[in-house]
Amino acid sequence: MSEPFVVVGGDAAGLSAASKCKREQPDREVIVFERGRWVSYAHCGMPYYIEGKVDTLGDLTSLTPEEIADRGIDLRREHEVVGLDPDAKTVTVEGPDGTFEQAYGDLLLGTGARALTGPFDGLDLDGAFTLHHMDSAAAIRAYLASPEDPAVVRDERVDADLVAHYTDLEPPERAAIVGGGYVGVEMAEALSAHGLDIHLFQRPDQLLPPFGDAVGEAVAEELDRQGVDVHTATEVDAIEGDDRVERVRYGEESVDVGLVVVGVGIRPNVEFAAEAGVDLGESGAIATDEYGRTNRESVYAAGDCAEDRHAVTGEPAWVPLGLTANRAGRAIGQTVAGEPTPTGDIAGTAVVKAFDLGAGRAGIVDEARARDAGFDPVSRTIEGSSRSGYYPGAAEMTVTMTADRETGQVLGAAVVGADRAAKRIDTVATALDAGLTVDELERLDLGYAPPFSPVWDPVLVAAKVLGGAVDAE
Amino acid sequence: MSEPFVVVGGDAAGLSAASKCKREQPDREVIVFERGRWVSYAHCGMPYYIEGKVDTLGDLTSLTPEEIADRGIDLRREHEVVGLDPDAKTVTVEGPDGTFEQAYGDLLLGTGARALTGPFDGLDLDGAFTLHHMDSAAAIRAYLASPEDPAVVRDERVDADLVAHYTDLEPPERAAIVGGGYVGVEMAEALSAHGLDIHLFQRPDQLLPPFGDAVGEAVAEELDRQGVDVHTATEVDAIEGDDRVERVRYGEESVDVGLVVVGVGIRPNVEFAAEAGVDLGESGAIATDEYGRTNRESVYAAGDCAEDRHAVTGEPAWVPLGLTANRAGRAIGQTVAGEPTPTGDIAGTAVVKAFDLGAGRAGIVDEARARDAGFDPVSRTIEGSSRSGYYPGAAEMTVTMTADRETGQVLGAAVVGADRAAKRIDTVATALDAGLTVDELERLDLGYAPPFSPVWDPVLVAAKVLGGAVDAE
Repeated sequence: MSEPFVVVGGDAAGLSAASKCKREQPDREVIVFERGRWVSYAHCGMPYYIEGKVDTLGDLTSLTPEEIADRGIDLRREHEVVGLDPDAKTVTVEGPDGTFEQAYGDLLLGTGARALTGPFDGLDLDGAFTLHHMDSAAAIRAYLASPEDPAVVRDERVDADLVAHYTDLEPPERAAIVGGGYVGVEMAEALSAHGLDIHLFQRPDQLLPPFGDAVGEAVAEELDRQGVDVHTATEVDAIEGDDRVERVRYGEESVDVGLVVVGVGIRPNVEFAAEAGVDLGESGAIATDEYGRTNRESVYAAGDCAEDRHAVTGEPAWVPLGLTANRAGRAIGQTVAGEPTPTGDIAGTAVVKAFDLGAGRAGIVDEARARDAGFDPVSRTIEGSSRSGYYPGAAEMTVTMTADRETGQVLGAAVVGADRAAKRIDTVATALDAGLTVDELERLDLGYAPPFSPVWDPVLVAAKVLGGAVDAE
Repeated sequence: MSEPFVVVGGDAAGLSAASKCKREQPDREVIVFERGRWVSYAHCGMPYYIEGKVDTLGDLTSLTPEEIADRGIDLRREHEVVGLDPDAKTVTVEGPDGTFEQAYGDLLLGTGARALTGPFDGLDLDGAFTLHHMDSAAAIRAYLASPEDPAVVRDERVDADLVAHYTDLEPPERAAIVGGGYVGVEMAEALSAHGLDIHLFQRPDQLLPPFGDAVGEAVAEELDRQGVDVHTATEVDAIEGDDRVERVRYGEESVDVGLVVVGVGIRPNVEFAAEAGVDLGESGAIATDEYGRTNRESVYAAGDCAEDRHAVTGEPAWVPLGLTANRAGRAIGQTVAGEPTPTGDIAGTAVVKAFDLGAGRAGIVDEARARDAGFDPVSRTIEGSSRSGYYPGAAEMTVTMTADRETGQVLGAAVVGADRAAKRIDTVATALDAGLTVDELERLDLGYAPPFSPVWDPVLVAAKVLGGAVDAE
């Protein structure tokens, strides 16, 4: 306990760990190295800032550097950890005043992930972005706003030159979004709010593949209804232009655009850890045990750079999302403070808004993926209502649910609909964690009142229908 | 199988059982006796019909008599079962054409419940109602509507004379609601929509006692904010008037009203069953096993007249609500058709709307009740947000959660807030059914996206805080 708890990365996992450790062991020295200027920010909130639903980037941060300091945490921004020596128990840090070695007693790798850029050129052009940094969000909003728009709030953490540059450019009238996952769907809504003509390109033949066909189709229909041109099964070949983006080319066709947002996935930041002999899992993210420990003594990993254990398969899985990063960080903070705490299984739960629809997913929805995991899956899709059919505001809701034929174990589900359908996935996430069978799920005593749910919640209807299919075979 | 499956009561439990049995065994004779004219109706929807959010009483029914007949069910309305001989396996039925004996192979008692009337006189006056029959709902709406209002739709099932009588009366300007449970709270909203000045009387010192203090206070504040005069810890002594209700007297005080709705609870209809030697439980409702069987051979009971098994205590409990009635009926239909199916435990889950708020509860929230059930309870109440704080529409949400100190088992919770907070109770209902501890609940992978939830869902925040309290002691 004489050596400090050193955390690499000042976002969800890192700061949750630092805060928890400091609270449990106030005398322990806790140092957080963050290579950027931003800390403790809600990456998931950036599309809503761009849309204009959130006023400032600062609104997306939950702790300021001052609040972090007040917790007794030694936060060093613009300090990048570039090396690790697990035998000597030191990290190599590059800061504004040079490079130095920092000794640790415990180390948390919370290095996060970076955006994939796709197999095409042109991302270096003006008007082409990935969405993994607050600076990109600020630049896109500056680009969309007219010069006199006061919405682009200056913040000492923002790259002021970049924002000034985009403020001076003529706002684009048409945009391309490359990728039909969370970022793509959320950005379609965000850019649509600025009146842009939008083309969304998705290489697979459906949007949001982890949500299954029914959700993908419903979201594609909603985007279409909202005026977005959705190009599924379409590969973008190039982003073209001189200094500034001028067009996106796909096959023999092209569309003229002034803005491109690429959201084709992320990759974990594991380089210096891997070089130091920290084991990676099959996913390429850092392998961890149930306490977030890596194979190297006193070295933990959490958040977007690390694997977790999947609640359904019991196997390692890489599902980089916000809650599980916070949760794992907090557990590790408690563990290094002397009370070993499991980081918790993940169910791969995710929810996403697409204009007037919300979608949610948990577990393994796709039958092929379920077979790969060793199950004998059966899947059903049903339509239900968000409220009693006679109550005003009732909206249609679609639920896909998958179970194992042999055991009846629920493997996963996805939901989509208006009227806040997305959060109904929490029932399934809880059932997955508890290992319920589809018959047990069908018998849950869920809340019923006409303004909030029909007698049989759509999740129960799905379990009922799926249970019939499991029994029949 | 030669003798028919006879069902007493044509509502949730009875028709679910009849339908399921007929589907599984199309050749089996299935007879449903219903003493009234209405079948398959949503009792819970009546306040919304009175409010005017639902156009006709017919909208509240899910199956018409014709649809029931199309399923091959022999439905006999205006047939009251008045006697049971479990040795001879017959019931005595009074119908329009006289009294007869009906033999059964299996019998389901789905006799429902009736409204308690309170310890005061005056419920026979014009303008005084309980809310347990569709005729009452029709009469109240006729009374509130001006004569030329076309909203009071005639229906052959409605008591036309009663409706005509109330249509002719001058609409009331002030109303008293006696009872601050579901019916009272929902009727406050319903009558408020008609511009009435409303006084709500509740004998206990809080509204919605099974939801705990925090919910009761929040709902009382909301009613007050909406202009309802809430009188808690106040006993109504009399409903007074000549032919028509004129005032409600409480202690030394009184208030002049033209309408009184009494919702002080319900009592199970068990009389002929009890006389025939069917065992009742401590609650006074019919005792059943996990398949809905009573102590008499081939006699089942389900719905508002029957007990179920509580998911938290494992003990019999009487919680008369809609979903569990449907569910138990369906399971019994399957059992009598040859596939024994448990009716399922109940978690006592309930949700209720109170103007702009929604509240939900599940399990055992109250510490005193938890102690009575043999637990050593600890309870915490937290405030959370329905969405990320920076996302428009985020609403405050309060969660009370109770756990057992020794085992950490979650015993129950209650939630209240705007923005559809109520259905978040489903996570807790699922956790209760699965027997999760508060630490396990805290580690659930629930859905997070800024428009739908903060990173830590308020249910998880409650588990986190409560877990700290459990560990500390």
